[in-house]
Amino acid sequence: MKSLRRPPIVGRFLAEEVALASRNSGMPLEALRYDVTPVGLHYLLIHFDIPAVEAAQWTLPILGCVDHPTTFSLADLQALPQRTVRVTLECAGNGRAQLTPRNASMPWVEEGVSTAEWTGTPLAEVLKKAGLQQSVCEVVFTGADIGIDRGVEQTYARSLRVSDALHPDVLLVWAMNGQPLLPQHGAPMRLIVPGWYGMASVKWLSKIEAVTQPFQGMQQVVGYHFRAQPEDAGVPCTQIRVNALMVPPGIPDFFSRQRFLKPGLVNIQGRAWSGGGVPITRVEFAVNGQWRDAQLHRAEASPWAWRGWSCDWQASTGTHVLAVRATDANGHVQPDQPVWDIAGFGNNGMQTVTVQVNAATQQ
Amino acid sequence: MKSLRRPPIVGRFLAEEVALASRNSGMPLEALRYDVTPVGLHYLLIHFDIPAVEAAQWTLPILGCVDHPTTFSLADLQALPQRTVRVTLECAGNGRAQLTPRNASMPWVEEGVSTAEWTGTPLAEVLKKAGLQQSVCEVVFTGADIGIDRGVEQTYARSLRVSDALHPDVLLVWAMNGQPLLPQHGAPMRLIVPGWYGMASVKWLSKIEAVTQPFQGMQQVVGYHFRAQPEDAGVPCTQIRVNALMVPPGIPDFFSRQRFLKPGLVNIQGRAWSGGGVPITRVEFAVNGQWRDAQLHRAEASPWAWRGWSCDWQASTGTHVLAVRATDANGHVQPDQPVWDIAGFGNNGMQTVTVQVNAATQQ
Repeated sequence: MKSLRRPPIVGRFLAEEVALASRNSGMPLEALRYDVTPVGLHYLLIHFDIPAVEAAQWTLPILGCVDHPTTFSLADLQALPQRTVRVTLECAGNGRAQLTPRNASMPWVEEGVSTAEWTGTPLAEVLKKAGLQQSVCEVVFTGADIGIDRGVEQTYARSLRVSDALHPDVLLVWAMNGQPLLPQHGAPMRLIVPGWYGMASVKWLSKIEAVTQPFQGMQQVVGYHFRAQPEDAGVPCTQIRVNALMVPPGIPDFFSRQRFLKPGLVNIQGRAWSGGGVPITRVEFAVNGQWRDAQLHRAEASPWAWRGWSCDWQASTGTHVLAVRATDANGHVQPDQPVWDIAGFGNNGMQTVTVQVNAATQQ
Repeated sequence: MKSLRRPPIVGRFLAEEVALASRNSGMPLEALRYDVTPVGLHYLLIHFDIPAVEAAQWTLPILGCVDHPTTFSLADLQALPQRTVRVTLECAGNGRAQLTPRNASMPWVEEGVSTAEWTGTPLAEVLKKAGLQQSVCEVVFTGADIGIDRGVEQTYARSLRVSDALHPDVLLVWAMNGQPLLPQHGAPMRLIVPGWYGMASVKWLSKIEAVTQPFQGMQQVVGYHFRAQPEDAGVPCTQIRVNALMVPPGIPDFFSRQRFLKPGLVNIQGRAWSGGGVPITRVEFAVNGQWRDAQLHRAEASPWAWRGWSCDWQASTGTHVLAVRATDANGHVQPDQPVWDIAGFGNNGMQTVTVQVNAATQQ
């Protein structure tokens, strides 16, 4: 039993963490029932403020070491070949609040993950038109969102290596779930980098620059690194780690969100995903440490989208700890416990849900 | 200066409060710039889980003391006369996290308010068809959302007195901002009670019942009451109190959300609103305790929607405390300090924003 449980979310939280949690939005776990997360339920992590960008005035310059520097309007980009790709995005800090001690930042418990259908033009099309020069090593994406992080005023910016940037599923996106991109998701144009944690998918794009030296922006070289200790150089956060969640069964208590259930057969449902387009090969479900294989649902056509799973459970009276863990085609399995990281990045420790089963519960 | 400041959000918060803040969603204050809050930025307070209701199977029975008990389908209701009303909703617990001590519940700082255009049929049309009997004193609205609150398993339910229920702007709503109602906003059908705090606008309607005795449901007689002490009988929360917010100027620090600004002329923008359809008559803006009148923008056609305001400010180097307070046509003015309430309801204490103005800031 004991090894099954994540460390409880112990202790207290700072007012700043609460303010960030109120501003940003998680996906309520019952929304795992949707193949595609409905508009307005997709998680949101907004570093600074949502900028006010007018689509009619907006342009996207492609600069730097390119043969044909070009500035595109929204209409220009929408006239290029387009595709729609279903992508599961997860915040690199998802699960941070489960760590002890804990980095004071956005205190995600486990709801910083969602899936959407993104429509746009492959970045490769635009880079091809611009003509990347031989010397280019990275492509830098700058947003319109400005603020201060660790004392440094900055415009949010991230880079990709050329080989990553040219992947045909890396898109310049203007629509989400068949509707024009919303302000909070990066309107009028954002990057989507499937298979990577969300920080790579720069919102509110304001320029793209081809560079010959690795980009030194703070969100690239200081932020979004795995580090065991503050003095570590760190390893960049890139592709999403294997992970899974279940819809907590039964009904919740309003304040504690503890779950209650009547005895009987329950079909437990959830989703599992991994980064880099690596398929999920196994999902296991446990009741009080007794593991069994869950049923994997048909894989989505998109290699970037989560996969459904379910498992029947005969719930008997008492308190039970439910758990889920996924394995991907690279043989990576979720750990029982969160992996230590000073900033709380990449926590894919397995989810547990404690359920009280009793005949007094109507549902 | 001192009297200008709300009590700081002192101390620490419980893990349960953080989990509620991650699950529920506030409206980031920069979204005050929109007359109508974009889809997905409207605040969300979901008591239990978002229920999965299939629109095709959904029906709405009108029961109790009516001459013609009727069950409506979605199509039936959509065939009735319809109207669209712009309404500002605010959570009764908005501002709770500003109180000291503080009730442990959803820890809204100040972002539990939004405005949407709701389309539906007047409830009065449906009640007319059903034929309310003379003896009816209240109409009870039951949702499909089920959970436990303070030890009691319940389906979320609230009532309105007949006179309130028959107001022509009280709507049975199936569309929001011109789109089908989203799951998290009460799909396929919800109630909208303009001018009241959000708890009255029952989501995921499953039945409507005309009763001859005041409804005794927990969310009606225990929850959503103003109380100075736990043993008080309490006064029900009904209409929204006069309130105002500004878009915090300048740029934020990521973690603390403190604001930074360069010196110069700034146009401060915001919204003000009151309940019961009572117009806003005055908005005042202060810098370091020096009050001046802000400019009220043209009133919206809807008496239920917030009103824009703005005020120029010549920002000089240094740290400044900005504040805003509104007055409504009933002469109600926002207090400088939060009004004490044990559950943190109805806090309309004026907003203050501390800004650091310095030439090093680019924005």
